[in-house]
Amino acid sequence: MATNQEDVKLLGATVSPFVCRVKIALKLKEIEYKYVEQKLGNKSEELIKYNPVYKKVPVFIHNDKPISESLVILEYIDEIWKQNPILPNDSYQRSQARFWSKFIDDKIVGASFKTVFTIDEKEREKHIEEATEALHILENEVKGKYFGGEEINFVDITAVFIAYWIPLVYDITNLKLFSEEKYPKLYNWSQEFLNHPIVKESLPPRVPLVAFFKARYEGFLAASK
Amino acid sequence: MATNQEDVKLLGATVSPFVCRVKIALKLKEIEYKYVEQKLGNKSEELIKYNPVYKKVPVFIHNDKPISESLVILEYIDEIWKQNPILPNDSYQRSQARFWSKFIDDKIVGASFKTVFTIDEKEREKHIEEATEALHILENEVKGKYFGGEEINFVDITAVFIAYWIPLVYDITNLKLFSEEKYPKLYNWSQEFLNHPIVKESLPPRVPLVAFFKARYEGFLAASK
Repeated sequence: MATNQEDVKLLGATVSPFVCRVKIALKLKEIEYKYVEQKLGNKSEELIKYNPVYKKVPVFIHNDKPISESLVILEYIDEIWKQNPILPNDSYQRSQARFWSKFIDDKIVGASFKTVFTIDEKEREKHIEEATEALHILENEVKGKYFGGEEINFVDITAVFIAYWIPLVYDITNLKLFSEEKYPKLYNWSQEFLNHPIVKESLPPRVPLVAFFKARYEGFLAASK
Repeated sequence: MATNQEDVKLLGATVSPFVCRVKIALKLKEIEYKYVEQKLGNKSEELIKYNPVYKKVPVFIHNDKPISESLVILEYIDEIWKQNPILPNDSYQRSQARFWSKFIDDKIVGASFKTVFTIDEKEREKHIEEATEALHILENEVKGKYFGGEEINFVDITAVFIAYWIPLVYDITNLKLFSEEKYPKLYNWSQEFLNHPIVKESLPPRVPLVAFFKARYEGFLAASK
């Protein structure tokens, strides 16, 4: 258990779903930590020092040793602090949790972002199709209350992107990528998940989040003209 | 330890670097297994049954329970069979091994393939630049005999792609993406690694591998005309 608050630090950005994953994990484990918000587009010396390869958030720093990549950070946190496990105990179940988290990152995150940030209409249609197909595959994987069963786990935390960030696509472009009608089980999961007290406290406020992405989208459109 | 050979099965394809990773891990652990070669472009019922999401090799099947994604398989194998560990024992070192393996997959594998299978010359230049930059970053990470120190580990096994598959780019397109002059440390590592007895026994023979990718490349060029 971290007793010295100075030992645990997170370099983050409020708008990032990847940072939010780490926040949820730390709250779940009841780890106190120092949070340092990074300015986007203006890389701090600390960020460059601790994540020289990508210069991106999140960076998790434990006793001055930095770790990047949100899923790698979650694995580390789960190994170091044993309370309220994130990964299942059984090795096969762990492999499946890793598989589905990777699936969300590889097949859903990128395609969903691109349904907003793509100019070419044909290309955009392709990304909509990709994201839709991947969400359908995941829909069939919802079996219990959470992906983790009765408790949230690695896949639930990864999927915060689906529950909270994908609905923003509608606010920005009017495209209903994620809806109750299309994905009833995934939608129910998202409602349960977003109402989990730990998750609720870890989410960035919605209004400024929408404003941030709307501004990004408008900037993107202006630059593409 | 797997005592019954029937319990451990690998669906693979000789030409796949991802399958080769699993083969190296299984040989390192001295696990006996049944290997079933898959015909590319002609998905077997077994492949579709055991990897319905991607329908791709490798699929590792342990007591009828399938796992896909080579790095997920390596983690599983390392958890189930403790002898000759693949991941470091220390959690921070484990996180770094995971980070660099993910780096290889995200930044080197795709870009390297695309230096061959891209028609547009500008696009191709971009992929060459990406792969070159990523290899330079990795060059600075070579510190001991192997990435794992005195023994091969998770990163070395992931990087079999660099040691054995990237040099094929030269055979196919005459582009020297990976050379001793440009990456002396990475090149020395590759020679040590390829001469490791476990690795040596796990690699597919080079001549048919070159022939396979040459034929693919010619097919690709013909289809792009």
